[in-house]
Amino acid sequence: MSVATEAQLAQARAARASYRAGTAAPTSGVAHGLTQANLISVPADWAFDVLLYAQRNPRPCPVLEVLEPGQWESRLAPGSDIRTDIPRYRTWRDGELVAETDDALAAWEEHPDLVSFLIGCSFTFEAGLVDAGIPVRHQELGRNVPMYRTNRACAPAGRLSGQLVVSMRPIPADRVADAVTISGRYPAVHGAPVHVGHPEALGIADLMAPDYGDAPVVRDGEIPVFWACGVTPQAAIFASRPPFAVTHAPGYMFITDVPDSEYLA
Amino acid sequence: MSVATEAQLAQARAARASYRAGTAAPTSGVAHGLTQANLISVPADWAFDVLLYAQRNPRPCPVLEVLEPGQWESRLAPGSDIRTDIPRYRTWRDGELVAETDDALAAWEEHPDLVSFLIGCSFTFEAGLVDAGIPVRHQELGRNVPMYRTNRACAPAGRLSGQLVVSMRPIPADRVADAVTISGRYPAVHGAPVHVGHPEALGIADLMAPDYGDAPVVRDGEIPVFWACGVTPQAAIFASRPPFAVTHAPGYMFITDVPDSEYLA
Repeated sequence: MSVATEAQLAQARAARASYRAGTAAPTSGVAHGLTQANLISVPADWAFDVLLYAQRNPRPCPVLEVLEPGQWESRLAPGSDIRTDIPRYRTWRDGELVAETDDALAAWEEHPDLVSFLIGCSFTFEAGLVDAGIPVRHQELGRNVPMYRTNRACAPAGRLSGQLVVSMRPIPADRVADAVTISGRYPAVHGAPVHVGHPEALGIADLMAPDYGDAPVVRDGEIPVFWACGVTPQAAIFASRPPFAVTHAPGYMFITDVPDSEYLA
Repeated sequence: MSVATEAQLAQARAARASYRAGTAAPTSGVAHGLTQANLISVPADWAFDVLLYAQRNPRPCPVLEVLEPGQWESRLAPGSDIRTDIPRYRTWRDGELVAETDDALAAWEEHPDLVSFLIGCSFTFEAGLVDAGIPVRHQELGRNVPMYRTNRACAPAGRLSGQLVVSMRPIPADRVADAVTISGRYPAVHGAPVHVGHPEALGIADLMAPDYGDAPVVRDGEIPVFWACGVTPQAAIFASRPPFAVTHAPGYMFITDVPDSEYLA
């Protein structure tokens, strides 16, 4: 098992503490080298559907941990509380986004039976891209990564169905192969890109108008590269309308104490 | 996607048809080169526990397919019926094995909400061992593979807990490394061995008295090699006592139309 450095752990703990205190900012680049995760929490009655959806769609929904009803400390981050330690939460009712909040304590009070899924995040392999000298534009600019709902249907499961969501990073053409190779080493956090080069092939009409996150800045000589994204379960909630759900806000992730290298294939 | 040969498909269909008609025999070596699977079916109320148990214990419980309530045709074998096409079934009530039968139609009549899990089986990579000239003793002798409940606890999930079950093949010492390498290429069907050489380290008091299957024949110069086994969920049922479950009988597997090579990593 890989072990995080003391400096990394201090960064992760400080970040979680500041989010718990109310800070809200996208987490790309925070605690460089540690794994980040998407959150989806649903009432126990919907837990099988979500876990089966993840099982049938492992590329966008790699399950890192499942917290059973009454659990909110992640084993990936001892001392954490997933109800408070994410910078921004979304509450969903009948598929509608009804609130964005700094914590999710009220959700757990209303639904003590929430089952929570921590899903791998492509921010995890961004450290590998940066370390290889590949620019990660949204990090450079202090913006959120752009994410898009595609025209590709995921495999349905129980009452859940929906489209694949992807994140996009513009990569210099001569580094695309390296970006594929490096991210491909991390299958548990989305792995290699699902598409390179043609947004329209994914049903993305306007690359400058992402469905989640901030608009990209694509420079001359750069190719848009698309990775499966852990926001995919949110698209399924939007499409399938379970009575209640809590998620992170896209780009505002749960920061764990686990080094990226733990998920190297 | 790999495609099975017509000859393989004919063997698989003939085998399923004969099991449907009432034949019962262990399936090791049947339809050489096609994937075999373990079955566990539970009422919908227990489905999340089983799927989570599999997710937390992927080595013994690699999920190949989940059939939702009302489904009994496996996508891994078009035209199949998982209620009839396995040579022998076991019915469990409150953790007790209460019947072994040639079909499971009565179980589905009693519990139309059964959710079924097809779990990878080490018989799948036996073709690779045979093709490499490594003897597979129980096949040679027309016996069932020996399986053992170990002293290793699986990660619990919801109401389910239990011990790891392993299958054992005696391998000539000079071929152990090859057997590790070949099986390691199939992580979705248990992959490399979990243990080589010392049954007592797994809590196996008497190698000649397996908990499931037939007693082994170990020859001079052979080492007992242990692989994680898809009977592990049956040990969890035995230990955790859900009100109802149906499984295959150990060694009497579901034969799919999917080539082993589909599960090459």
